[in-house]
Order: sequence, then structure tokens, then C-alpha cells
Amino acid sequence: MYLMRVGAVGAERPALRIDDDTYLDVSDHVDDFNEAFFASGGLRRLEALRRDGRLTAEPRPLNGQRIGAPIARPHQILCIGLNYRDHAEETGQAVPAEPIVFTKAPNTLIGPNDPVLLPRGSDKSDWEVELGIVIGSRCRYLPDLNAARDTIAGFVVCNDVSERAFQLERGGQWSKGKSCETFNPCGPYLVTPDEIDDVRSLDLWLDVNGEPRQRGNTATMLFDVYHLVHYLSQFMVLEPGDLINTGTPPGVGMGMNPPVFLRPGDVISLGIGALGAQRQIVAPSR
Amino acid sequence: MYLMRVGAVGAERPALRIDDDTYLDVSDHVDDFNEAFFASGGLRRLEALRRDGRLTAEPRPLNGQRIGAPIARPHQILCIGLNYRDHAEETGQAVPAEPIVFTKAPNTLIGPNDPVLLPRGSDKSDWEVELGIVIGSRCRYLPDLNAARDTIAGFVVCNDVSERAFQLERGGQWSKGKSCETFNPCGPYLVTPDEIDDVRSLDLWLDVNGEPRQRGNTATMLFDVYHLVHYLSQFMVLEPGDLINTGTPPGVGMGMNPPVFLRPGDVISLGIGALGAQRQIVAPSR
Repeated sequence: MYLMRVGAVGAERPALRIDDDTYLDVSDHVDDFNEAFFASGGLRRLEALRRDGRLTAEPRPLNGQRIGAPIARPHQILCIGLNYRDHAEETGQAVPAEPIVFTKAPNTLIGPNDPVLLPRGSDKSDWEVELGIVIGSRCRYLPDLNAARDTIAGFVVCNDVSERAFQLERGGQWSKGKSCETFNPCGPYLVTPDEIDDVRSLDLWLDVNGEPRQRGNTATMLFDVYHLVHYLSQFMVLEPGDLINTGTPPGVGMGMNPPVFLRPGDVISLGIGALGAQRQIVAPSR
Repeated sequence: MYLMRVGAVGAERPALRIDDDTYLDVSDHVDDFNEAFFASGGLRRLEALRRDGRLTAEPRPLNGQRIGAPIARPHQILCIGLNYRDHAEETGQAVPAEPIVFTKAPNTLIGPNDPVLLPRGSDKSDWEVELGIVIGSRCRYLPDLNAARDTIAGFVVCNDVSERAFQLERGGQWSKGKSCETFNPCGPYLVTPDEIDDVRSLDLWLDVNGEPRQRGNTATMLFDVYHLVHYLSQFMVLEPGDLINTGTPPGVGMGMNPPVFLRPGDVISLGIGALGAQRQIVAPSR
């Protein structure tokens, strides 16, 4: 299934993708794709309704309606730093011996085509295409990689927008440069694992104003998605609907020579294999 | 007002403190002390009900009932690092030029007297008494310290429990050592600002097994509570009900010579001036 949420900010309705232009509204069956949905086995319920032909709403055309993030605001957005060997090298940082974990404010989550706002005082805002994992069930101390695999609800495209001066030049920890308003475009779809041949072999791409900037493949991750979920569950309790951004491949603006950062009017396009594509226009924060 | 939540985990009822042994159940008027409550002006509504004598429930004795955290799980728990000059010195780290910001997983929030669980593999779990700020209204780019003051719903006692090996020896960022299950005891009360003479002059204390460990006063903060709220709002959008742990005074276990860390069976007692006191028994994670 390709889950999506369609509608204005704060009024998104849960839906299933039929094709690029058409969706099925499932709001008669589901409140929202939120923590309660995942915790209560909502994915299995929805799959059964679909299989049994009980989703009887008429397909609707998208017709330019806004697409929201495919999940409601999660309990937590976790991020993995420097998880592609080449990206660690381009930023001049050592390849980590184990996953580097940081977080973004959950309210940074926006739709895949919503504007990205440059924070006031920002002149080093940067892009990062990332594969996102959505957690399907509450878990802690997962025993092995198979258990990690079983707890994943699906995968999303994310842009882990980052203000490098706030992140690296303003004292100690990365949160300040990662949690700015609009800094986590997500979607358009939450893609369930059965739709993906091999999540460890997906092409990632990102262009700015049509110029190719990032090209990568999840095959070059240092720690794969199952490793990451297993690892995180040893340190904290993961909640249903939690989002994990798994790190970015080479080609961020900070790594260019000279560095290049986002400016008002820039257009960011990005996507991952069959998971879908995003397009954001960059604007100053109001 | 002294807000509190009384009852079993997940079934806490909102209440007002009358005295140490007695509370007023306000669940006829309030769903919970959560984001929606603060966002909708719930504090003012509750104050008006009290003033007008319309809180007609009978006072109830606590009688050993569990006290939960005084706020529901927040959108975000933000923390400030090294915000007391003496604490920065005892940990061997430089006094920061501006606030160091990191986060804890929101699901670390527990009641003030709930057990603290040592994570599996932990042998460096440590204590940190902290003044917590609860945000009262959605805010971004606050213009000045007065606006910051106006957006604060109240103050709480927190224990910012920290696993030092996970935090400092396992790669890069602090989240791994801060987000473990049960690592944010909070309460017993959310104390509204009108009940506090001067939040910049509150005594903090923490004992382990009756031995004095931390003694401090908010007067020695590097960045005071208004500065912190104003500062954070320049980087991210703060949501109603968000919790900000404002840093810890000297006396953590990591700073002792030799270092001392928590062991199963230890009893942590802590408190801040008139904000109330906590008591946690340390237990191994199950």
C-alpha cells in the first residue's frame, strides 16, 4: 500500500494512492495515520479492508490538492548522522564506529511539496535527501534484525533540511540547526515494505534548480535500516509512528567547493526509487 | 495554582493541589493537561473556575495514590547543557558562549516518584536535578524577554537522568544517553508563575541514599529562564505543553572523584524550593 494524506494543513484526510493522479479517501475507516492507528494494527486492518473489497469510496482525482506528510506529527523524529561513507568524507568528518543519533522537533514535519522557509538570520541552509523509516509498533530491546524488520510500518522520502551555521557554529549539539520550522518535508507516500523489492538497494536523488546535487544508493549505507532500528531500540523506547531519517548520501551544499546554500526562490526536487518525489520552493521565513 | 495528575500510568486524572495530602479532581472540567489544554487557554479557564467557586468536586485525600507527571506527554522535551557555571567546570567542559540545546525522547516522562530504570548495559547512569519550564502557547521568534515570560505556563521539578557512557562514549551526539526509558521524572506539580516570588532565585537539591549530592540555586544559571525561551524561539517553533529542562547545578556523579553512578536499590531524592520534591528508587530495566 501507498498511504497518503490529502488536504489543507491540519485538515489532511487519510487516503491510499491509486496512481499519480488518483487516490482513495479512507477517512470512513481511519481517523488518521497517527500513533493510535499504527499501535492498534491499523495497517493490517486497512490491508484486509482493501483485500476484501470493502473500501467502497469512489476514487478521486488529486487535481492539485495539497498532499500532506503521509503520517501525522510523530512522537519523535530521530536522525542518523554520517550514515553514508562518502557523505562523511565530503563533510570532513570521520566515519562513525556506531550510529550517530540526533533528533529534529516533530513539528518540523510538512508535506512533500510545501515551501521550505529559511530561518531568520540563516545563510547556510542545506538539503539532505534521506530514506525515512516509520515505526509500526512500540518496541524496546529488540532481540535481532528480524524483530527490527517486523516492527517497521513502511518507508518515506524525507528532506532533512539543515542550517549548518546553527548546527555546527552555535555551540555543541546539532538540534538547533535541525529543528527549524518546515525543516522536514516528508512523503508523498508511506510505502509499506511489501511494495519494495529491497530497501537496501534504492536510488536517492536531489536536484536544486534542476542541477543534480545528490546521487546515491541505500546500498552504501554504513548501517542499514534493520541495524538502525535494532540499535535505537537498545537505547530508547520507539513508539508507533516514530520517524527515523537514516542519513544522507554525498552532495550536500556544505560539501561543495566553495559551499553552496539555499536562497529564496530556489527549487529543491528529490526522490527515492519507487517511493515518490518531492518539490519544494525555498522562501524567507515570515 | 499547583496542577497535578493523579492515578495509574496512562489513566491519570487532572487535579489541583490543596495541600500535601489533599487534591481537587478537575476532570469534570479538563480532559488533561496536554497541548490542547494549554493551546486553548485552559490555564486561564481553570483559574477563573477556581476564582468563581465553580470547582465543586469534593477534596480527596491522596492516600498513597500514584502521582503522574503534571503534564501529559509533550510534543518535545528540550534540554539545556552546562547552564550552571560550576557544573560546566566539574565536568571539565568549557562554559558555553550561548545555550547548548539537546533533546530527550518525550516518552521518557514519568511521575516524580516512579522507579528509574537502569538501561541494559548501563553502568554510568547519573542524576541531574533541573528546573523545568512548561510552554503555555505556540511561539516563534519571540521579540523580547517579556514576550518569553508571557508564554510560560509554569515550572516543574525534573530529574534529567543521563547515562554518561551512552551520552559521551558512544559517538557524537548526546541523545543516546538522555532518551532511555524512565529518564525524565517530572513533578509533582506544575506551578504557575504567580505562585513563585522569583524563579531566578530558587534552591535546588538532590540526595542519593540520604547523602547530599547537588546543592544549587537558579541565581547561578548562565542563561535564565526568559533568556532560554526567547533564545529557543529563534530556532524552532515551541508548542504548548513543551518542556524545557534548564540545566543542572554542580554535584553530578560524573563530577565526583572518583565518579559515582547509580546502582539498583539507590534512592534519589530531589526538589526545588516551593516547587515540590521527588523520590525515585533505582531498579534494573526488565
